[in-house]
Amino acid sequence: MEVKAPKKHWKAKLHEVIYGTHTPAGKMFDIILLVVILYSVIIVMLESIPAIDSKYHSFLNVSEWVVTILFTIEYILRIICIKRPSRYIFSFFGIVDLLSTIPKYLSFFVVGSQYITAFRALRLLRVFRILKLVRFVGESNNLLRALKASRTKIFVFIFFILIISILLGTIMYMVEGPQHGFNSIPHSVYWTIVTLTTVGYGDISPQTGLGQVIATVIMIIGYGIIAVPTGIVTAEYSTQLQKKDQKEDDAEQHCPNCHAHIVMIDARYCRKCGTQLRED
Amino acid sequence: MEVKAPKKHWKAKLHEVIYGTHTPAGKMFDIILLVVILYSVIIVMLESIPAIDSKYHSFLNVSEWVVTILFTIEYILRIICIKRPSRYIFSFFGIVDLLSTIPKYLSFFVVGSQYITAFRALRLLRVFRILKLVRFVGESNNLLRALKASRTKIFVFIFFILIISILLGTIMYMVEGPQHGFNSIPHSVYWTIVTLTTVGYGDISPQTGLGQVIATVIMIIGYGIIAVPTGIVTAEYSTQLQKKDQKEDDAEQHCPNCHAHIVMIDARYCRKCGTQLRED
Amino acid sequence: MEVKAPKKHWKAKLHEVIYGTHTPAGKMFDIILLVVILYSVIIVMLESIPAIDSKYHSFLNVSEWVVTILFTIEYILRIICIKRPSRYIFSFFGIVDLLSTIPKYLSFFVVGSQYITAFRALRLLRVFRILKLVRFVGESNNLLRALKASRTKIFVFIFFILIISILLGTIMYMVEGPQHGFNSIPHSVYWTIVTLTTVGYGDISPQTGLGQVIATVIMIIGYGIIAVPTGIVTAEYSTQLQKKDQKEDDAEQHCPNCHAHIVMIDARYCRKCGTQLRED
Amino acid sequence: MEVKAPKKHWKAKLHEVIYGTHTPAGKMFDIILLVVILYSVIIVMLESIPAIDSKYHSFLNVSEWVVTILFTIEYILRIICIKRPSRYIFSFFGIVDLLSTIPKYLSFFVVGSQYITAFRALRLLRVFRILKLVRFVGESNNLLRALKASRTKIFVFIFFILIISILLGTIMYMVEGPQHGFNSIPHSVYWTIVTLTTVGYGDISPQTGLGQVIATVIMIIGYGIIAVPTGIVTAEYSTQLQKKDQKEDDAEQHCPNCHAHIVMIDARYCRKCGTQLRED
Repeated sequence: MEVKAPKKHWKAKLHEVIYGTHTPAGKMFDIILLVVILYSVIIVMLESIPAIDSKYHSFLNVSEWVVTILFTIEYILRIICIKRPSRYIFSFFGIVDLLSTIPKYLSFFVVGSQYITAFRALRLLRVFRILKLVRFVGESNNLLRALKASRTKIFVFIFFILIISILLGTIMYMVEGPQHGFNSIPHSVYWTIVTLTTVGYGDISPQTGLGQVIATVIMIIGYGIIAVPTGIVTAEYSTQLQKKDQKEDDAEQHCPNCHAHIVMIDARYCRKCGTQLRED
Repeated sequence: MEVKAPKKHWKAKLHEVIYGTHTPAGKMFDIILLVVILYSVIIVMLESIPAIDSKYHSFLNVSEWVVTILFTIEYILRIICIKRPSRYIFSFFGIVDLLSTIPKYLSFFVVGSQYITAFRALRLLRVFRILKLVRFVGESNNLLRALKASRTKIFVFIFFILIISILLGTIMYMVEGPQHGFNSIPHSVYWTIVTLTTVGYGDISPQTGLGQVIATVIMIIGYGIIAVPTGIVTAEYSTQLQKKDQKEDDAEQHCPNCHAHIVMIDARYCRKCGTQLRED
Repeated sequence: MEVKAPKKHWKAKLHEVIYGTHTPAGKMFDIILLVVILYSVIIVMLESIPAIDSKYHSFLNVSEWVVTILFTIEYILRIICIKRPSRYIFSFFGIVDLLSTIPKYLSFFVVGSQYITAFRALRLLRVFRILKLVRFVGESNNLLRALKASRTKIFVFIFFILIISILLGTIMYMVEGPQHGFNSIPHSVYWTIVTLTTVGYGDISPQTGLGQVIATVIMIIGYGIIAVPTGIVTAEYSTQLQKKDQKEDDAEQHCPNCHAHIVMIDARYCRKCGTQLRED
Repeated sequence: MEVKAPKKHWKAKLHEVIYGTHTPAGKMFDIILLVVILYSVIIVMLESIPAIDSKYHSFLNVSEWVVTILFTIEYILRIICIKRPSRYIFSFFGIVDLLSTIPKYLSFFVVGSQYITAFRALRLLRVFRILKLVRFVGESNNLLRALKASRTKIFVFIFFILIISILLGTIMYMVEGPQHGFNSIPHSVYWTIVTLTTVGYGDISPQTGLGQVIATVIMIIGYGIIAVPTGIVTAEYSTQLQKKDQKEDDAEQHCPNCHAHIVMIDARYCRKCGTQLRED
């Protein structure tokens, strides 16, 4: 067992560097990984532009291979240095890591893998893991709690919008019909959502008078009900901010008698009304 | 009279299953109904797509007949098991049930009933009945109360937008005229609403310099006044949330003297200031 | 002087009917006026649609003449029955009344008065006078106060948007240039506002890569800063609602010692803490 | 040293006029500068319109030269009358002043300087300096503090939107492909942002069924998450307003015992509960 000790030690160190963020090496690892991910996503993007790909194809291809091999090594190291590899492999980020690494290998076997390789853009998701670990958790804690609290309401809202859209889309299909570009009910529902969310591409637009009146109604609905999700999130977020304030208030910052701010935390008597604040 | 007793019993049971939601059978009935409704709406949609309809016409047609007959049976059962059938028949959902069931029967007699059958999408409205009974009422109670409280204000707001749109639309008609696509005042008002709500199809757009200046003004108005419905709903909703909080606070959760949270509901003295909380 | 007495009486009665809203006759007058105004605006709209105008030209023309003469009589009566006619004539609504009545008379003398007659749509503004007097004042009082309180901030905001748009528009003109539809700086600024307010007609859209990147920045700015007017209006409106609440609270609804709601207004002692509420 | 005294005096006076805002001369200088800036920006805009430039070219050119020389004199005076010229020259506004003045001189040497001269629109930025000094600081202080407080959260939000857009844009590229106008991943990401921010040009729009479904998802995401920045700014701004209120409250406006408003600032006893407010 003493023979394995150094090896175990080596694994623990590696674990600290790859999964940890508190050591300088761990931070450095995260930053390098971040740069490589962003670099690889830019390569994926540039490859998809015909004018650039035809000029710099070999450079982009080699870059991509280097990045892919780096990610492969990282993937293997992550499996090696963790105690229960299955936990990592079947975790959300484990699957993302695998899916964003293999497309390049697949391009050997599959012809016309242009679309498969685009899967590599999934690497961007890995950015969330790095940033999450580093520091944004604390920052947007209240916000996340507010979003969680309003989750159900927003789902009900989206569900409501979908039903409204299907109904109004069907009416528009009956009013305008295929001859004005509303080819089918699903297409008409698509147009309704385009209008309701105030996107308004204009690839299809109502031609009949009645159709334009209904379109007007849809627009005003869409313009008005955006107030609903906004109201929900704002109110919940305000509540979260106030709760936080109140907690701090209740704990120690106010006199229990006159509610004056207690500036000196070690004060024994309230500076305003003289109430005794602590026994000792 | 004793002969009718079992029949009455049978009706009461049916009533419980169809209209009730608390028994397992009632819940099961609602879930099955929900699935059939969604299935039938998908069929209506698919039928309207020429490519799919031509391929699977007979399957869709048979499916639709099965669904229609199921809905007809449900409609008859609903009438049978209720005490005053007229109450159901002339209720909102009673009319929806009828209107969404008969179009298929009409397709026998009327030629080119493609548009009439689209009425079947009204079935989606029935989803609201089911969901309302099951559980979303409690969830969005405060929200609904906030929306009700701000109803009048939002109507005034929409009314205001309509008048502004008619005035600005008339001005745009005078400035741009039919030669630039603003064919008539109603059409020009339609364009104004498209712009004010920031939908912006682009099927018509101002060509003259003055027209573009006015369009800019319309856009900035539209971009700015969306703050109004949002502000109304948010403020009302916040108020609802706070009222709820305060009610709970007033009732039992705070010490009447120092406002500290009373964690133990059966506490006799406030844990912070020693005020007696209850006589007994 | 006694001879003029009944005449004076007649004027006072007329004044009460035309300017007043509390008598049944006054209310009836307002409602009839409202109907005539809406009817006349619909006529103006229908006249501008070539297909309808060619069919029903004589009917619309006669209708319009009837309405115009009614408005002329109303205008004269308003002048007669008021003490200082100049006050009415040069007031905002006096000018609107005049401007929306004369275009029809002008159509005698001026050829091609199609655009001048559109001025009659100004009659819609008169709707505000009627409604204002009837009942919406009380309804949206807090809202109006909130909008007034945030007026300056919203002007600063719009001013800021305009400067941003001119700068970004100039940059887009330099990047895209006339060959891609950005013909001049004003036109380019127009496009920027179309994009910033998320209207997005699509009649012009950036073609170069750099132009699309800048367009993306403009869109995200526009998508983000809509939070600013919304935040201002919402916060001010919430404050107005709370001030109203607090005023009511301060006046009589709470115990000055324990802040419990005083349900019985004539209570002499607080039902919760026993504090004496009134001497007498 | 006595010889230099009057010169120093002259410089100090000039400094007061140019940099100061409290003297009448300083205010007058700011107003004149504001007018000249706006005039010069209008000239820059008009010059870019071919129809106007060809007619009034010489007038616009002379106007521009006059303005440029005025700005040059102002720039030199600003350097002369300040103690440490380098502080001004390398400040933000110093660089803006220089960059917005030299393009006209460059037009002597560089051919086709149409785009360079557009740099003169940067002069608009100088408007901020003038207005900032005059009076808008106080007005929007709370708002600025709220925006500063929510800065990090809004950056995280924009960052999140960008990552979502790249992922969804890549998916759309895979689904629709170059044959439907989604030429490359960057172009497809551009389209996604156009859709997510509800701008919706319509120059590209999805053609396949799956593409339209994904587009629908993008639109609803964009329609929903606008609630996030709005919620952040509104909640922070409300908090700022309340803090301001509370500060004022804590200071002197309320009785420390019963929280009643103290209307008379020199009151010695609370008018409601009789608590002694000040010793002296």
